[in-house]
Formats: sequence, structure tokens, C-alpha cells
Amino acid sequence: FQDGQRKVDYVLTYHMKKPGGSRSGRQSMYMLTERAVARSLRFLGDAFNGHEDQKAFRREEFEGKLRDMGLELEKDEDANVSGVGFLKIHAPWNVLCREAEFMKLKLPTKKVYEVKKSRGVVEKISTLISKILEPLHPQFEERQPKNIKHLSHTFSREKQHLQERRTFFKISFLSVNVFFFCAGITSLLGSGVYTAAYPLHDVSDKIQPHTYYNICLDELLYEEWANYSVFYKYQPIGLVRKYFGEKIGLYFAWLGLYTQMLIPASLVGIIVFLYGCATVNDDIPSMEICHPKTNITMCPQCDQVCSYWKLSTACGTARASHLFDNPATVFFSIFMALWAAMFMEHWKRRQMRLNYERILLLIKKATTFYVEKLTCQDRLPAYMTNIVMMLLMIGVTFAILFGVILYRISMKAALHMSSSPITRNNVQLTVKTTAAIINLVVILILDEVYGAFARWLTVLEAPKTEKSFEERLIFKTFILKFFNAFTPIIYIAFFRGRYGSFFFFFYNFLLYNILFSYRMEECAHGGCLMELCIQLSITMLGKQLIQNNLFEIGVPKLKKLIRYIRSKQGAFQEEERQKKLQRYEIDHFLEPFGGLTPEYMEMIIQFGFVTLFVASFPLAPLFALLNNIIEIRLDAKKFVAELRRPVAARAQDIGIWYNILRGVAKVAVIINAFVISFTSDFIPRMVYQYMYSPDGSMHGFVNHTLSYFNTSHFQEGKETMDPLLLGYPVDICRYKDYREPPWSETPYEISKEFWTVLAVRLAFVIVFQNVVMLMNDIVDWLIPDIPKDTSLQIHKEKILLVDLFMKEEQCKTYMHQSTASPSDYDHCCRSKNSTAAHPRSRPNNPNIGS
Amino acid sequence: FQDGQRKVDYVLTYHMKKPGGSRSGRQSMYMLTERAVARSLRFLGDAFNGHEDQKAFRREEFEGKLRDMGLELEKDEDANVSGVGFLKIHAPWNVLCREAEFMKLKLPTKKVYEVKKSRGVVEKISTLISKILEPLHPQFEERQPKNIKHLSHTFSREKQHLQERRTFFKISFLSVNVFFFCAGITSLLGSGVYTAAYPLHDVSDKIQPHTYYNICLDELLYEEWANYSVFYKYQPIGLVRKYFGEKIGLYFAWLGLYTQMLIPASLVGIIVFLYGCATVNDDIPSMEICHPKTNITMCPQCDQVCSYWKLSTACGTARASHLFDNPATVFFSIFMALWAAMFMEHWKRRQMRLNYERILLLIKKATTFYVEKLTCQDRLPAYMTNIVMMLLMIGVTFAILFGVILYRISMKAALHMSSSPITRNNVQLTVKTTAAIINLVVILILDEVYGAFARWLTVLEAPKTEKSFEERLIFKTFILKFFNAFTPIIYIAFFRGRYGSFFFFFYNFLLYNILFSYRMEECAHGGCLMELCIQLSITMLGKQLIQNNLFEIGVPKLKKLIRYIRSKQGAFQEEERQKKLQRYEIDHFLEPFGGLTPEYMEMIIQFGFVTLFVASFPLAPLFALLNNIIEIRLDAKKFVAELRRPVAARAQDIGIWYNILRGVAKVAVIINAFVISFTSDFIPRMVYQYMYSPDGSMHGFVNHTLSYFNTSHFQEGKETMDPLLLGYPVDICRYKDYREPPWSETPYEISKEFWTVLAVRLAFVIVFQNVVMLMNDIVDWLIPDIPKDTSLQIHKEKILLVDLFMKEEQCKTYMHQSTASPSDYDHCCRSKNSTAAHPRSRPNNPNIGS
Repeated sequence: FQDGQRKVDYVLTYHMKKPGGSRSGRQSMYMLTERAVARSLRFLGDAFNGHEDQKAFRREEFEGKLRDMGLELEKDEDANVSGVGFLKIHAPWNVLCREAEFMKLKLPTKKVYEVKKSRGVVEKISTLISKILEPLHPQFEERQPKNIKHLSHTFSREKQHLQERRTFFKISFLSVNVFFFCAGITSLLGSGVYTAAYPLHDVSDKIQPHTYYNICLDELLYEEWANYSVFYKYQPIGLVRKYFGEKIGLYFAWLGLYTQMLIPASLVGIIVFLYGCATVNDDIPSMEICHPKTNITMCPQCDQVCSYWKLSTACGTARASHLFDNPATVFFSIFMALWAAMFMEHWKRRQMRLNYERILLLIKKATTFYVEKLTCQDRLPAYMTNIVMMLLMIGVTFAILFGVILYRISMKAALHMSSSPITRNNVQLTVKTTAAIINLVVILILDEVYGAFARWLTVLEAPKTEKSFEERLIFKTFILKFFNAFTPIIYIAFFRGRYGSFFFFFYNFLLYNILFSYRMEECAHGGCLMELCIQLSITMLGKQLIQNNLFEIGVPKLKKLIRYIRSKQGAFQEEERQKKLQRYEIDHFLEPFGGLTPEYMEMIIQFGFVTLFVASFPLAPLFALLNNIIEIRLDAKKFVAELRRPVAARAQDIGIWYNILRGVAKVAVIINAFVISFTSDFIPRMVYQYMYSPDGSMHGFVNHTLSYFNTSHFQEGKETMDPLLLGYPVDICRYKDYREPPWSETPYEISKEFWTVLAVRLAFVIVFQNVVMLMNDIVDWLIPDIPKDTSLQIHKEKILLVDLFMKEEQCKTYMHQSTASPSDYDHCCRSKNSTAAHPRSRPNNPNIGS
Repeated sequence: FQDGQRKVDYVLTYHMKKPGGSRSGRQSMYMLTERAVARSLRFLGDAFNGHEDQKAFRREEFEGKLRDMGLELEKDEDANVSGVGFLKIHAPWNVLCREAEFMKLKLPTKKVYEVKKSRGVVEKISTLISKILEPLHPQFEERQPKNIKHLSHTFSREKQHLQERRTFFKISFLSVNVFFFCAGITSLLGSGVYTAAYPLHDVSDKIQPHTYYNICLDELLYEEWANYSVFYKYQPIGLVRKYFGEKIGLYFAWLGLYTQMLIPASLVGIIVFLYGCATVNDDIPSMEICHPKTNITMCPQCDQVCSYWKLSTACGTARASHLFDNPATVFFSIFMALWAAMFMEHWKRRQMRLNYERILLLIKKATTFYVEKLTCQDRLPAYMTNIVMMLLMIGVTFAILFGVILYRISMKAALHMSSSPITRNNVQLTVKTTAAIINLVVILILDEVYGAFARWLTVLEAPKTEKSFEERLIFKTFILKFFNAFTPIIYIAFFRGRYGSFFFFFYNFLLYNILFSYRMEECAHGGCLMELCIQLSITMLGKQLIQNNLFEIGVPKLKKLIRYIRSKQGAFQEEERQKKLQRYEIDHFLEPFGGLTPEYMEMIIQFGFVTLFVASFPLAPLFALLNNIIEIRLDAKKFVAELRRPVAARAQDIGIWYNILRGVAKVAVIINAFVISFTSDFIPRMVYQYMYSPDGSMHGFVNHTLSYFNTSHFQEGKETMDPLLLGYPVDICRYKDYREPPWSETPYEISKEFWTVLAVRLAFVIVFQNVVMLMNDIVDWLIPDIPKDTSLQIHKEKILLVDLFMKEEQCKTYMHQSTASPSDYDHCCRSKNSTAAHPRSRPNNPNIGS
């Protein structure tokens, strides 16, 4: 406040009714927007002058209410930022106390107790570990002995004497939450009565009495958190939560845990990849393909324009495929499924611990009561529109995918026809890479479109509360973006090549002839896993590079640059004035906080890349890890320096995101099962080795997977135009499928081997899915939701609390009888600390824990 | 108490140090036990006289503590039941209030509010439904208008003026919970210082002042609940909870919901069964078998003693099989999987509502904090022993199963060899039925053994808290009993007959020749589903009839009879004395409450029967329903009349049972998928119809499933001893399998059809499992955990509460300023009811719900 004593806790801004000559000043507000827009706005402002009056009236009414509640207000209309009025709000001490009581804040009391450390080896190990990890922890003063805790209890003004001194800081933190008083503010903001409402960043508070604890909280965060040079350290989550509130604290805690969990995943991924590299020379099938003696003539890969080719030319692809298609991949995808389960469990524990340690522990809110699910009652029409529109959009995704496929097929044919041999040789690579890049561009564009579309749909649905609006929006956006990101990948994994048709299995019986009469796109000889891997890496890396680094780093830098150039052009006094600005005026120029949804969304899609197709791309966790290390600091910088301080919102969990994560993890199990059994060559190899191989080795596998085709059986118009490309006429060519040879009774029918392999593939899916689900359940069951130390602490606190009150109770009775002076009362309470243990406090009371 | 004023809230009993001549009296205590035991006990009592002194000392110490806490005690050592001392405890009003504050009881305040009913058609329908259901509700006086509710708030002595009058009854209910004071009682009971601790049944309380509300609570329960004549009515859960506490209330609520949910399941089950009956004549395969023209000669069903047989003799079995093996079964098992999911969801809602409505709503306990999972830390050795022992026991189950199989095979052979044709004809039926009965008896015996064994194992493990002891015990008992009940059924479903071998699929590759060289037990021609059905119905019905009706009804009746005969023999004065007994003495003779575990266990095993193999026995839900209708009233009777009143225990959920239920429901999905695809003939029929049938009908299916065998290929010593039984020599016989005919290149090898059918079967399992799991998730997502009305009510209460306190707050400030008299204070608070709404109370405050 102007008096320099009271702290500005909260600021409301509003358009001022223009006094004479304020026009020029007002333009500064729109500094960043185009001047033309500013001008038109001014015009509108004039037109709605009547409205301005009404708004001023509603402001006064609202201010009156705030004063009634005990808040102290100060207006600042002659600020340096003209055209904008500031209403500064200060919450006095007693108002804060009242609120603390209302909210049933749990605050530490004077009473301390010691947490027993586990004894023996376990303790030594944990001490050792914490010493090793010491440099990884952020440095700041609060380093009190960890095993002494303050007992906390619901704050009550009548029992203030019990509360610990530090409490008083913590209540002052509440001041940020003055927002609670301004209950009606959302609607006022919506109707434009106020233009903005935000608490202040803490930078300039050093001189203030409240802040003896959070001296430079802001700068501390800047140094220890929003800084790339500390990327290897843990985040100071406690500080973040104190400063930004629990909701944002939870996001960063989640992101931190996710990044941490990615470390082992990337390590195992690298090992699996290296295993592939190391064994590439021992792989018998690719050796057979590459062997110069192998002289298998393959059938053309497309109608007319393609010609016969030698299998040995696929040598490179076959060897590269082995990098991603080896038995270690199976292990890795099981590992990653378990990893996802572990991650969920660890997050539950972390969340529980954070909830326990948090500053504003609200006793009253049992989580279960407030995780309201979406219901579908009496809103059927809106739901139906929604579902139809969503399906339409997913249809658009598929249509675009189909377009890309057509592009690929036609490009391939066109390039095959080209006369230049260099072009021909690079056909595969060119087509695949350009197609993947087109896909990426489409994904990036559609991402933005879908975001806007989901918002529009949700507005259409008009949910009742802000929370349900957010949940629905998130859900829709997620579905659309998910399909957008993963459709091309799913297509390559399952619907391309030989096994595509099996997903139309029953369909097949009906449309048998139609489907088999046209040729499906085929993968290269090494299997589709290789192509899947290319597509995945391009999409994932491209999305991360472009969306994060370009959009999140580049665009702000660009903006700064523009502003810098502008300010050079601009008048000198403008710069001068900037310096004189008060904190609340500086904050006014920062961008408002837009919610955590985009941050979470990005991470969940990344989580999808890491888990869903991990069987085909074991390096995905590594790339995700690298991205996230940057991401954390980037987001931190944004929150500390580039956004207005968000209103500290209460939250117990990450809400719908947890459910989405669970969903992704579940889908991942099934998709990985199918990738291993259908996309990779794992099962055919196994079946060959144990059922058909004459000597139990993999020798002869390549020959076994190739069927025979008599070139005289080509359909009219389908035969190749260049039958003599290899230099000799071809009678019998080979193709990759399990079909009867031309000389059998039923030529080109599906063979018994095919059905055998299919049965084994399906059995593998069942076994894999159920084993992984069972292991997930076991992990879920073995890792308790509440960390042991936390549950012990809770139990202990409860007993101590009962003890404390019992003593106080006895005191009171005693007082009542002796009618002693208050000082005696205090004395009594202190001296009674050593009274004999009360039966209630016995830990073996079976009903306390039940 | 003796003064007739104070109520006896709780009773502790102990052995009295024998004064002279009390010996004869003391025998009455052991009235029910054998006299010999009583005598030996008396002897022991003499020997441990020193201990008795020590016990008396500890009793005195304990009583002192109780008095310190404000309880009033009365000893009654000259009671009519000699040898037993009674310590009657009364909790005075102020002690109860203190406890209520401690426990943060939520009690209704004076403030009432109205719950808005939903408008329009919905309301009319719900009114109509509630009118129709009116006679189903139990009758008792409490019929206040449903839409007026009392606002409830944490009880606090300082705010007593706010609490509603009826509160005072509710606090008096607490008296039952005086148990909380007796924290150390468990250990005292364990060491025999006290022999029993129980609250009293409420029967004789009519004259007491506290009970104006619960007049005849006991008798009301007896009439409206523990009575077979009201079997069609809802249970008066509210009363049960008030009387017995929440834990038992939850059990009956759960049982009630389960029974209620069984009604639609039984209806659909009956319809499915009737559909089977109706279509039995349209079933082409069984028509073909029964057709007199069908002249297929089948191979012998066992080595040597069996002979060739005509397929048409299997006509009856084939027709009977159709009853349970028809397309409706597939629908029914999907239905039941969804039913199970719905049941879980409904239970969650019911539980939530009960938690909200319950009398002792503890604000503080967030469920999540107290559902501690079992952890496996630093107890590895005990765990290993446990696992090994459990596996051993499961091994015993398998061994017994194997014994039964051997019995069956040998009996079959023996009966086949018997000369009497009547015996021969009844071979199948005799063997199956006797085997099922043997299984049943084994199951019943092992059930008891396993119960004791699990307890022993858990004691060995020595868990820290009583709660974790209970959970571990339950878990172990469940695993053992579950395997015990379901092993024979699983054997019949999957490991018998043709498809048994496919579960050794990979195993097969290794032991190919070993496995196929000996003959597996085979099901009758109609498929194993029929036998599965017989086994299931015998086990389920037998278990229910014997365990419930015999043990639970019969044994108590028998005991009563014995007592009656005894009392006739006994002295007349004994009977006279019985009449004079005080309530606390009568209760002493009732059996102590032994926990709910056996009740839950029985129901969960039943739930297993209803869901796990429902594909094979659609009438299971009906039998379960019939059983449960009796079961509810039986249990109710037991609780009201035959057991001491249990200590009211607090509980928020049914604990580990819910997890077990979830587990059973999950396993059910997989088992049903396998039953449909492997045990029933559904898939082979489908495959035949759509892939092999020349005209798309089922004609020719029977012929298609039978392979050819050349009788000259019999192994040495395996050919039948009676080759001419049918009256003509047999060259080619048929058997049910998909194998190549003798004239193919690879005779008797598994044929392509086999692999096709297997692939389709496996694909069906995958599709079924994932579709059902997806539907379960959707059900879980569509049905909100909190009923809408409850969540609305909670929200409304919160707003009102804030309002109320705000007013009070303003009042206080006002008081402080004007220093008015207390009566003014009251006046102020009342008159201020109509103050303008507070900004906080606006429902659109986004942070209240977040």
C-alpha cells in the first residue's frame, strides 16, 4: 500500500472511465497488439460508455462487499499505466485467521515429536543414499533435522496458544488466497467489470515484516529452479507449492517424478538397443538373406511397374530390422508395461506424501467426494452431437491418413517408373521419409485445429460447473489429439502388409475375394517393425522439437526481440517510466496464466509414445528424458518470469489426468502384445524353431516364410512390364506369405502353417496381456499407497493429538474446580506434560486404526 | 445400575476368586460345555490361584483408570450367575460429549434445509416407483418428509446450542462405544484378566429416559428384520446400523444389495434356460445325431474294456447339452460380466450414500489413509514359508482332485466290465454323480481344515496390528477355499477332453509323444459343458444346503433341543433363576460374536459360482437368490437373538472383501471367455457355418467334427475286447477330433481345420476379454461414484454451513462491540437469519468445489 506498511495481497484491474487526455496513455496498454486493433477498441469503448457507468456501479457494490468482509482496499487510478485502474486489496491479520478457521487449515502446533528412524542396516543404507544424493537437492536454508516434526492440528482462534510461531508465516501465505473472498469475481471478470485479477509476485517484499521466512522466495526459485544449470537436481517442490499453490506444485512434482522414472527406462532401452546392435551379426535369418549364395527371386512388389527382384538386395533392411526386432524387445515391452504400472503407483505414493506434507492440508475433503465423474444424465442430445462430431473428426484423421497412403503408393509407382537408376535405388527411403514428414506436418496442424474444435464442442455442451467444463474439454482434446498422433503409427503397425488382413478377420469371410483382389501396401522384407520405428521417431522427435522448442522457446524470444526493436524506436520516456513502475504494475504487463492443460497434454501424448509402441522403438524413453529435462526448466522459467502469478488453487490430485494415464497404460499393454505378435517376426521365428525346423535352429527360416508363385498365373494386366530386368526369364517367383504352392491341390490357398502361426500369435497375445495385467495387479498390491513413514507419522500424530487434548481437558476441569488465575492455567498445562500415559493413547487400541 | 436410573452401557465379566461354596454355582457357567471340561478347568483354577490374585490387582488398576476418565462403575459379584463377577460401566453425559468432540462426530444441527426434487417427468416417475415399492419398505415410525434435512456439523461442546435436540439421542448411542475408553481391554481379555466384554442388548430399556427414540429397537428389529415373513421387504439398514454399528450394518447392506442385484440376473438366467429348452428341437447337430438314419460307428471310449458304439445312442446327452450350450449362453456370460461390474459400481454408490447418512460420520478419516495395503517388507522369511505352505495346500487340493479322477476312470472301466446290462447303461450317470458327490464331501471337509490352517499360518506370520491380521487371514482363507471349491470345476472345464491338451500348448511341443500316448479322460459327446453343469450344480447346491441350512439352522436347533432336554432333567430352581436374571446376565449366556469373516466368505464363494462359470450354468443366479433370501433372515435372527451384542465398530467400507470381489469379477471375465471358446461348441459351429459349410447351414457339422480311424491301426493291447458288440465287424470308426484321415499323407496328424478352429477360439478369447473389459470401464465411468442427490446435498450443506458460521461470526463481532447480554446474543443470531447472502455462499464460487 501507499503507506509502505501493509502488503498488497491481491490486485484487481479495470478499464477506467476515460478522463480527458488519457487516450494516448491508454495505448500503452495495447503496446503489444496492433495499433489498429487498439483504435477500434477505443471506438468500441466510446460506444459503450453507458455500459462503463454501469460497470463502475457494479464495482462499487463489489468493493462495498469486500470492505464488509474486513478487507482493506486502496484504489490507484493515477498509476503510471494510464487507462487502467488498480484496486489493491490487503487482508488484515484477523480476517486471515477467520479464514484459516473456516478452511479448517491444519497448521503445526508448538508440540514437537521425534520420528524414529528404522534401525540397523536399512538406516545406514538410507543415510548413505541420502548423502550421495545430497548435491542433487536444491540448496536453500530450510534444513532442519528431518526426524523432528511439528504436530499439526486444525487451526482455531481459541486455541492459538497451541500453535507454533511459524504458523504465522503460513497464515500469511493465505493472503494469496484472498481470492476466496472474491467469490463473485469470475462473473465480474467475465462481464468485463474488471479486466484482470491476480496476486503479486513476491520479488519486492524483502522489506516487509511478513516475509522473514520467504525472503527472496521469488529469487530463490529463479536460482534453484528456473535455471538450466541445475537440471540434474531435484526440484524444490516445497517452495514451488508455497509460491504457486498446490495445483501447479502437483504438476511439477508429477513432471519431476515422470522424468526421474524415465531414467531407468532409458537405460534399459539403451541396453536393449545395444543388444540389438551387438547381435546383428549372429542373426541367422538376416545372414541367410545377405549370404551371396542366396539366390531367391522375389515377385514384383507392385503391379505392372515393379519387376522381379533378388532377395539379397533386402540385406540392409533385414540387418537394420534386427536392431529393433529381436527377443530383447519382448522383454523390453514387458518391462515398460510394468514400468508404467510402477510409475502410477509411485505417483500415488508421492501424491499421498505431498498431500500429507502440504501447507494447506484440508482435513475435510475426502478425495472421493470431490472426484466427480462425468455423468450422462439428461444431456443426451448434446452428447449425441458431441459423439457424432468427435467421430467425424476422427474420420477426418483417417481420411488424411488415407491421403498419405495414396501419396505413398502413387509416389512409389511414379518413382519406380522414373528412368534414373539413382532415384530408383532411393525409392524406399525417399517415399518413407517424405510420407512421415507429411504426416508430422498434418499432425502439427490438426493438433491446433482439434484444440479449438474441442473447446467449441465443450462450449456447445454447456456443462454446469467450471470443473466439469475443464474435465470434458480435456477429455475431448485428449481423444482427438491422441487419434491424431497415433493413427498413422497404428496403421503401419497393424493394417499394413501381410497381417493387415487379419484384423478384418471375420470381415474376411464375407469379403474374401474383394479384399484379396487388390494389393495391400507391403512393408519391406524385414517386417513392418522397421518402418514403424522410422515413423515413430520422426513423429515423436518432430513433435517435441517443433512444439516445445520452437513454440515454447522460439516464439517468446521472437516476441522479446520485436519488443526490443520497438522500444528502440519508441520514446525514451517510455523506458524511463517502466523503471518507476510498482510491482503490481509490472505484473500487469505479464501474460495471464492460461491453465495447465497444454502442459499436461503434451506430457501425456509423450507418455503415449513412450509406452504404446515401445516394442518397436526402445530409444523412445531416452528421447523423452532429454526433452523433459529441458521442459521442466522451461516451464519453470515461464511461470517465474513470464506469467502473472497464478492464483494458488487447492488440489489433492492431478484429477482426470491420472485416469487418462491409467487408460494409456492399459491400452499400451494390448498394443504392445499385438506389436510383438503381429508386427514383429518374433512368433513366426519361434514357431519355425520349435515346430518346423529340422535341426531346431533358425536355418531355413527365410525359405519357410516364402511361398511360391507361378508367373504364368498372373492376372490379365497385372504382370510386370519389365520381366527381364534380372537378366533371365522367371518361371517361379517367391513372395512372403504362408500359402499353398501352385502345385498343391488347392493352389494359393492359405496353408496350415499360416493357421498354426496365427494360433500361436493369438495365444501369445492372450498370455502376454494376462501376464502383464496380473503383474500390474501384483505391483499395485505390493506397493502400499501410503508410504510407510507417512502412515506411521499419521498414526503417531493422532495419538499425540489425543494426548494433548486430554491433558488440556483435565486442565480445564482442574481450573474449573480451583478457579485459578490464567497464569496458573498455563502453568498447569505445562507441568502436566509428564502425566502418566492415558489408556487412550495406547497404540494397541484396535479401534483407532480401524 | 442398581439405582434403576443409570443405564448399563457396557459389561465386563471376570472369574471371581472363589469364595466358599461358589463351586457348585460356578458350574452353571459351563452349562453348555461338558461337565468334565468344567471340572478340569476348576482344577486349573485352583492351581493358578496366585495368578488370580495378580489378575484381581490388574483389574483394580484398570478400574481406577476408568474412573479417572469419568466413567461410573458398579460391581456385581453376588449375581445370580455365581463364579462370574460383572463390572457394569455407565458413561455419564459429559463424558459422552467429550468423546463426541474427540471423535469429531458429525451431528445434525437445528438448522434445516430443503432438498429440491428434480422437476417434471423424472420426479413423477420416481414418486410412482417409490409408491409401488412402498409395501416393500419395512414399517417403523420414522417417516419424516424426505426432502427436509438437518444440516450436520462436527460436534463441539462450545457450540452445543446449535445442535439439534435429537442429537442427544445420537450421542447416547455413543454409550455403546464406551469400548473406546477401554483401550487396553483387548490385552486384558487376552491374558484372562477379564473373560468377556460386551455391550447389552436393548430389550429392557423401555423404561429408561435415554431411549425415547429407540423404544423397542431390539423388538422392532426382531419383527421387521429377523423374520422370514418379511423376506420380500427391504432391510431396515438404518436401524441395523444404529443397533449393531456400521461394520455389521455394511455387511447387511452389502448382502441386501447383492440379493437385490441377483433378481435381474436370475430372471435373465431363467430366460436363457427357457430359450435353450425351446430351441432344443431346432438344433440341427443334435437332430442329426438323433436321426435314425445317422449310422455312424464311433471308436471305443476307453482302452480294452470299451467297445464300438453308435453315435445315435448319444442322442439324449446331445439334446441335454443344447440346454446349456447355445448362442444365448454367450450373451448371458457377457451379461453377467457386466452385471458384476454394475454390482461393484452400485455397491460403491450405496456405500457412499451410507457413509454420508451414517450416524457417526467421521470427518477426519479420509478413506485413502486407512486402507493400508499389505506390505511385504522385512518379513520375507515368514512370507516364503507362507507361500510354500499355501502352494502345498493347493497341491493337496490337486492331489485329491487327481484321486477323484482316478476313481472315475477306474470305476468306469470296472462298470463297463460288469456283466449286467442295466449297470452298463447307467455307467455315465452313476460315475459322474458319485464323483461329484465325492468332490462335494471333500470340499466340505477341506473347507474346515483350510480355515484352521489359514489361521495357523497367519499366527505364524505375526502381523503387527489386529487389522492386518484379519486381512491376511481373510486373504489366505479365501485363496485356499477358492481353490478348494473351484479346482474340480476348472479341471472339467479346461483340462478334460479334447481341448485339455491345448493348455499344455507349448509343453506339447516338448512332450508331444508322451502326452498323446495315453488317453485323456473324455467328455460325453455333447461336450464338456454338460458335465461342467452337473458338477457345478451339485457343488453349489450341496455347499449351500449343507453349509447354510444344515450347519446354520440345524446345529442351533439341535443345541436348543439338547438344552431343552437337559433343562427338563435339570432342577426346577435353575429355570426359576433364569427368569430373574438381569439383562446383562442373560446376555452373558449368549454366544460371543465371532466376526463377519465366515459370512462374507460364504457369500464371496457363492459370488464366484454365480459369475465364474455362469456360461455353463445359467440357473446359478437363481439358486443363489433363493439361498440369500433365507440367508439374510437367518443371519439377522442370529445377530438379534443368538449372539451377544457386538461392539459397534466403525467402518467406511467392506475393506479387503471389495478387492476380493473385484478380483473374482476380473477372473470371471477370462474364465467365461475360455469356457465359451474352449468348453462349449460355440466356436466350432461358427467356424463350420461360415467357413466349411457348403450351404451356410449347420447340416453336416457332426460329420465334420469327427475324424476317421482305421481299426487295424490300434496299438498292441489297446484294441477293444469285444469288437463285435454292434453285431458287425468295424473297419473304420470315427472319433471326435480334427485330425487327418488314415488315407492322407500324414495320417492322424492334427489337421488344418484344427488350427483354424483354434485360431478362431483364441481370437474370440481376445475379443471377448477386451470388449468386456472395455464395457466394464465404460460402466465404471458412466455411473458416478457418488449418487447425484448425495453430491448435491453435500454441496448444499457446505454452503449453508459457511453461511451459518459467517452469521455467527458477525454476531460475535457485534456482541464484542456492544457487550450485550447473552440473551441478546441469542436474539441476534436468530434475527440475522435473513441477512443478505454472503459472497462466499454463491454457488458459482469456483474454488469451493475444486
